[in-house]
Amino acid sequence: MKSVNYKEEASSFFLSLQKKIHGILEEYEPEQRFRLDKWERPEKADAYGGGGISGVLEKGNVFEKAGVNFSAVEGFLPLEMTKKLIGKSEEARFFATGISLVIHPRSPMIPTTHANLRFLQVADLSWFGGGADLTPYYIFEEDAEHFHSVLKKNCDDYDTSWYPRFKKTCDEYFYLPHRKEARGIGGIFFDYLGKEDSSKLDNYFSFVKQLGEAWTETYLPIVDKRLKDSWGEKERHFQKSRRGRYVEFNLLHDKGTHFGLKTNGRTESILMSLPPEVIWDYSPQYEKGYREAKTLEVLSGFRDWV
Amino acid sequence: MKSVNYKEEASSFFLSLQKKIHGILEEYEPEQRFRLDKWERPEKADAYGGGGISGVLEKGNVFEKAGVNFSAVEGFLPLEMTKKLIGKSEEARFFATGISLVIHPRSPMIPTTHANLRFLQVADLSWFGGGADLTPYYIFEEDAEHFHSVLKKNCDDYDTSWYPRFKKTCDEYFYLPHRKEARGIGGIFFDYLGKEDSSKLDNYFSFVKQLGEAWTETYLPIVDKRLKDSWGEKERHFQKSRRGRYVEFNLLHDKGTHFGLKTNGRTESILMSLPPEVIWDYSPQYEKGYREAKTLEVLSGFRDWV
Repeated sequence: MKSVNYKEEASSFFLSLQKKIHGILEEYEPEQRFRLDKWERPEKADAYGGGGISGVLEKGNVFEKAGVNFSAVEGFLPLEMTKKLIGKSEEARFFATGISLVIHPRSPMIPTTHANLRFLQVADLSWFGGGADLTPYYIFEEDAEHFHSVLKKNCDDYDTSWYPRFKKTCDEYFYLPHRKEARGIGGIFFDYLGKEDSSKLDNYFSFVKQLGEAWTETYLPIVDKRLKDSWGEKERHFQKSRRGRYVEFNLLHDKGTHFGLKTNGRTESILMSLPPEVIWDYSPQYEKGYREAKTLEVLSGFRDWV
Repeated sequence: MKSVNYKEEASSFFLSLQKKIHGILEEYEPEQRFRLDKWERPEKADAYGGGGISGVLEKGNVFEKAGVNFSAVEGFLPLEMTKKLIGKSEEARFFATGISLVIHPRSPMIPTTHANLRFLQVADLSWFGGGADLTPYYIFEEDAEHFHSVLKKNCDDYDTSWYPRFKKTCDEYFYLPHRKEARGIGGIFFDYLGKEDSSKLDNYFSFVKQLGEAWTETYLPIVDKRLKDSWGEKERHFQKSRRGRYVEFNLLHDKGTHFGLKTNGRTESILMSLPPEVIWDYSPQYEKGYREAKTLEVLSGFRDWV
């Protein structure tokens, strides 16, 4: 059995996937390009801390703000994080590489989406993690069904028990307890794949690569379809107000955001996930029967979409 | 020595101060009024949990969003909070009453301001806390000096050691480590006054009342002065972008926000502090020598304003 250097192979896969997705999204935007920022991460005692390439496209016709970032960072974990990740209270080396993507379209009819895929090493343990989820402003059931079916198909190719498990993990993760609301209509979310049994890392890496390649198929058909839908000031206002929930989730609850900020990541790259324009009205009310109220109703619980 | 019922006297002082401030701010707004929401807080096992009155004025000519809230809540504290507040790991009753105020003016030339005054009881300990701070978008040194001098004068009436101490606490508290920036030009912030020595509670209550009465003097002269300053799209954009930092502080770091959300407070009342319209541009740059760059320069450190 050949020994795989996951550190290198995973980071080079994520890097090439980033480039590919930049290219595909730019096809929608005649006048905008991804702005690339290469950065290095300072690590204590001048040790090598790694870095990344952030790519953000702003003010597009279709994509108001789209961030597709790559990073490969390493160094020493804060004690509290080692404890959390591998259950030991000792300083440990870590390596983390991944691709992270958040897309905020201009049209309120097109959902925001988020995805990330990552590989982690802490001390002598390694694992894959990641997922993809969808946050619509106006909910079209067929879009939610499409998104979930593509994810399910890709999971089923490996193990039919994965989709239901990963779907549940996603629902539980992207939940705002202070609002009693789901962030969106979910997707899949998984972590620690291969941590308990490193002989399975090959299989998990193959799954992660397949998911990465399938990303365009999960999201872009929804973009293409909803681009034709019209909207006005009312829909735009509702979108900006709902984007507030996105901010609340990411700053109050998101572990990735907190991990990044606590491990001295690049703040602008981590917070590229925040929507471009946001409104916080005080205690807005939506009339029953209207589409805005329907969104709130769907997000008050979890649904099976396939 | 008469025994003071701080619970009752403090809450009735805060309630009447809220009404007074509503009235004063409404004088600036011919077409808008504070919308009052009376709410009750659920407490476990149907015990009485208290409640509050939220008052928010939106879409004013001067004040784009102004929240001046009163609350008086009670119940049982989560263990982790008792531990933090009184160092004991046991379930304890608590009572908390206070006034909390956040004002987001429309003009980028007028600073945002925040203030709160509160009285807490946990088990058999009681204390006062609070403070006031200013978050300008464009920094006028004379405004910062005015704000700090009024606060200093009111502190000095009690003890000349208070202002420097409370000013430092404020600077340290309203700091965004992930941005290496102060939230604004500070003010004063104090907590646990009287916790160690309840014989001093009378004196501290008197101080808290004086500060409450002096609030209009700290802030409104700045509003009156800056209302005349002109501004355009560029200044408005900068204001909305800086408001993003306000959101980041409140959701990532603010203990009051976390306390409220964790103790089952009313979410809309707690998050009334969030600005009405916010922008997150990716990694904005400001040319040296311009006023925007000056703001960032001032906020990169702490200054003595009096």
